[in-house]
Amino acid sequence: MELLRELLQIQSVSGDESRINEFLKSYIGLRKFDWKVLPEVFCGEQFQDCVLLKFGNPRTAVFAHLDTIGFMSRYENQLITIGGPELLDDTKIVGNDALGPISCNVKIVEDFLFHDFPRAVLPGTCFSFAQEIKIDDEFIQAAYLDNRLGIYNALKLCEEIEDGWIVFSTYEENGGGSVPFLLDFIQKKSPIRQALISDITWITEGVNHHNGVAISIRDKFIPRRVFIDRIISLARQSGIPYQIEVEGVGGSDGKEIQFSPYPIDWCFIGAAEDNVHTPFEKVSLMDLESMLRMYKYLMAHL
Amino acid sequence: MELLRELLQIQSVSGDESRINEFLKSYIGLRKFDWKVLPEVFCGEQFQDCVLLKFGNPRTAVFAHLDTIGFMSRYENQLITIGGPELLDDTKIVGNDALGPISCNVKIVEDFLFHDFPRAVLPGTCFSFAQEIKIDDEFIQAAYLDNRLGIYNALKLCEEIEDGWIVFSTYEENGGGSVPFLLDFIQKKSPIRQALISDITWITEGVNHHNGVAISIRDKFIPRRVFIDRIISLARQSGIPYQIEVEGVGGSDGKEIQFSPYPIDWCFIGAAEDNVHTPFEKVSLMDLESMLRMYKYLMAHL
Amino acid sequence: MELLRELLQIQSVSGDESRINEFLKSYIGLRKFDWKVLPEVFCGEQFQDCVLLKFGNPRTAVFAHLDTIGFMSRYENQLITIGGPELLDDTKIVGNDALGPISCNVKIVEDFLFHDFPRAVLPGTCFSFAQEIKIDDEFIQAAYLDNRLGIYNALKLCEEIEDGWIVFSTYEENGGGSVPFLLDFIQKKSPIRQALISDITWITEGVNHHNGVAISIRDKFIPRRVFIDRIISLARQSGIPYQIEVEGVGGSDGKEIQFSPYPIDWCFIGAAEDNVHTPFEKVSLMDLESMLRMYKYLMAHL
Repeated sequence: MELLRELLQIQSVSGDESRINEFLKSYIGLRKFDWKVLPEVFCGEQFQDCVLLKFGNPRTAVFAHLDTIGFMSRYENQLITIGGPELLDDTKIVGNDALGPISCNVKIVEDFLFHDFPRAVLPGTCFSFAQEIKIDDEFIQAAYLDNRLGIYNALKLCEEIEDGWIVFSTYEENGGGSVPFLLDFIQKKSPIRQALISDITWITEGVNHHNGVAISIRDKFIPRRVFIDRIISLARQSGIPYQIEVEGVGGSDGKEIQFSPYPIDWCFIGAAEDNVHTPFEKVSLMDLESMLRMYKYLMAHL
Repeated sequence: MELLRELLQIQSVSGDESRINEFLKSYIGLRKFDWKVLPEVFCGEQFQDCVLLKFGNPRTAVFAHLDTIGFMSRYENQLITIGGPELLDDTKIVGNDALGPISCNVKIVEDFLFHDFPRAVLPGTCFSFAQEIKIDDEFIQAAYLDNRLGIYNALKLCEEIEDGWIVFSTYEENGGGSVPFLLDFIQKKSPIRQALISDITWITEGVNHHNGVAISIRDKFIPRRVFIDRIISLARQSGIPYQIEVEGVGGSDGKEIQFSPYPIDWCFIGAAEDNVHTPFEKVSLMDLESMLRMYKYLMAHL
Repeated sequence: MELLRELLQIQSVSGDESRINEFLKSYIGLRKFDWKVLPEVFCGEQFQDCVLLKFGNPRTAVFAHLDTIGFMSRYENQLITIGGPELLDDTKIVGNDALGPISCNVKIVEDFLFHDFPRAVLPGTCFSFAQEIKIDDEFIQAAYLDNRLGIYNALKLCEEIEDGWIVFSTYEENGGGSVPFLLDFIQKKSPIRQALISDITWITEGVNHHNGVAISIRDKFIPRRVFIDRIISLARQSGIPYQIEVEGVGGSDGKEIQFSPYPIDWCFIGAAEDNVHTPFEKVSLMDLESMLRMYKYLMAHL
C-alpha cells in the first residue's frame, strides 16, 4: 500500500493536476519494464495533464480521474468550492500561495464559506483537505479515496494487463472536459468500443461494505443494457464478490463517453465509500481487493 | 395503422432498445423493396441499437428516437424513473426479470416510488407503462405516442422519400448520447446541413388539437432563425395545416445537433399531445395526418 | 468610438444574428486592407452567421460572441426570455414582425412576462432592449455592452495582430452551439492550443471599476492552472492594469472549449460591468482601454 499512501499525499484539485501528472510519469517510467506487457506511454502538452497507456491490442479502455474536489480562495477570506465537497464547519484545509504554505479551517457563516488563516490569501489559491490516513484490518479511511483508489486500481492493473488502454483523466470533479480529447486520440490511434470507469461510489441501503466491488447499472445516465448484462454475466463467472448498484443521480467520466461522437459502451465499476467527499472517506479493504481482481478479470475476458 | 399498433406494443425504455431495433431491422428488410427509392441501411454493433437509412442524395436528415420513458427497480421495492414519466399513484407497469414477467402498480409514498409486486424484483429491472390503445374517429390514445408516432411518421416517409437520411436514435428521453456518433457517421458518409426532428410535442394555450402539425420556433434551445423562416414559408406554400409553437423549456434530439461539431440547422416538427408522459397520451388523427404530409412535402422541397 | 456606436445599434438576439453577420462582413471587407496583416476571412452558409479571421500563423484564438439576450413573443401577449435578461417592469423593448416595427414595454404579472403593444404580435417575434447610449469621461452606459465591447475589442485587435485566429461566434447567451463547429474548422485549418474569451464580466466585491481588465481564474468551469499562471505572469510583465477575478458561477464560450475534443487551454479576459443584462450596462472607459491593450500584448507574447 506504499503506492496508495504516496498517491493520497499529492494535491491535485480540478484544474491543478500538474503534480499528480509528474508523479505518474515518473512512476510509470520506473515501473513499466517490470510489467507483463510494456505499454506505449502518451503524455506531454498535447495531453495537458492526462496520461494514456496502450497495452497490446486494446478492446477496452479503463478511465481513472486524477483530480480531487477542494476549495479556492476568492476575495476577503471567502472560499468557493471545487467540485462538491461536503461542507462541515472547522474542516482542516491546506494550500500554498506566493507567500508560502497555508494551513487553516473552513468556516461556514450563513451559507458563505470563509477560511480563518491570519493573513490575506491570494485570490485563486487552491485548497485540499488536510490528509489523515487510517488503515486497520477491515478499512482504509482518508481524504480523497475518491479517486486515489481508482488510480491505484488502474496502476495495479498495469502489472498484469495484456490488451487495453489505461487512461488517467483530469477535471472530472468539476464537470469534466478531458475525456473528449482523450477519446479522440484513442479512436484515432487504436479504437475501442468498451470502457470501464475506475472510480469510487457510495454506500447506500443497497450497497454495503464487505459485499464486493459495485457494478453500476446506472447513475443519472444509463449505459446500454446489453453491455451491462455481459459484464454482470462475466462477473458471475469470475467468482469474485460483487454487488449491483442502481442510482438515479450522480455522474462520472462515463457521462462524457455517453455523449461522445463514438459508439462506446461504458460501465462504472468501483468500491463503495462512506462519508463521501469528506476528509474521512472510508472503504472496505475487501471491496478494494475485489475491485482489483474484477478489473484484471474483466480486462482479460471482455 | 397496424404498423403503429405493433410499434406501441414493443418495450424500449432508454438504454434497453434492442427489441425495437430488432423490429425495425426486420420491418425495413421486408418493406424496403416496395419503397419508391431503395435505401442503404446501416445497423449493427457499430451503431449500437440505432438504424440509419440513406435515400438518394441527402440534403436533410430526419431523426426519430426509439426509446421511451419508464421506471427501473432499485432496492427494497423502490423504483426510480427513466426520463420524466408523470408520477401518478397506481399507474400500471410491466417488466421482466430473471424470474419471469412482472405486472404491478406504481405506489407513491412521501416522494419515493415503490412497486407493489408480491415478490422481490431484481435491482435494475426496467418497467414500461402497461399499454392500452384507444382509437376513435378523432383521436388516438395510448402510452408512448411520444415517440411511436415519430417513428411511424419516419417509416411512412420511407415509402415516398427520394433524397434524405432517416435516422432512428436511442437514449433521447434520458438526455441523449447517440446523436453525436450518428452525426459523425452521416457527415463522413453523405453530409447534410439540415435536420428535422420527428417527435411529439405538447398541447398548450397556443397549440391545440386539430389545428395541424406543430412547427417549433424554439424550446429551451433556439434554432437559427433563417432556417425556421424557410420552413414556415414552405409550410405555408404546401397548403397543409400547421401551427406555430414557441416554448421556453423542453428539448429533443435537436439539442444534440445544436451542440455538435457540425453547422447543421434543425427544426422540431411534430403533432401535439395531451397527457404528456402518462399512459394515456392523446393525439388528434388529423394532426398526425398533417405531420405525415408535412414531412413528405418538406423532404421534397427543402 | 463610431464603430462601437454602430455595433450597439444592431439587433442580434441568439439565433437571429444575420444582421450583425452582414455588418461584420461588410466592415471587414472594407477595413482589412488597412490592417497590419491581411487576414484570410471565412464566412458564408458553411459557418452559419459566424465569421473567422486567420492572421499569419496562429498560436492562439480569440472568441467574441455576436449574440445578445432578449425576449421572444409567445401566445396571448406573453413573452419568454432569450438568455437571461434582468426582469424589470416597464423595460422598453423593440422588435419587428410581418406587420411592421414594434416598440413596447415588458410587463411582469405574477411570474409571467407580457408585452403591452396594442395589437397582437406574431408568435416567435424577437425583441431587444431599446438602445440608449451614454458616454462621459469615465464610463460608457448602454444595452448590450455584453458583448458589443467584446466584438469591438476583437475588431480593434485586428488592426495590429500578426498571428492568431479571431472568431465571432453565435448563440452564446442561450447556451452556445457554434463553438464546436468553429473549433472543428480551426483545428483542421491551422490548429491552436490556446484561446482567449473576449467577453464582459461583472463588477463584484473583488472586481471594481477603473482597476483594469479582469483576468478570470475561474467561473463555473475551471481552466487549467498552468495556463492561467502564464497569462497572469505576462499580464504583470506588460505593465497594463488588470485585476484577478474568481467566480463560482457563470459561463462563456470557454465552456465549449473546455468540453471540446481538442486539448485547448482557455482564459476569459474582459472588462467588468455594472447592471449586468439590463438596458443600462455600465463599463469604465479605462477598463475598456486596458482590455484593448491587454489583448494586443497577449496575442503578441503568448
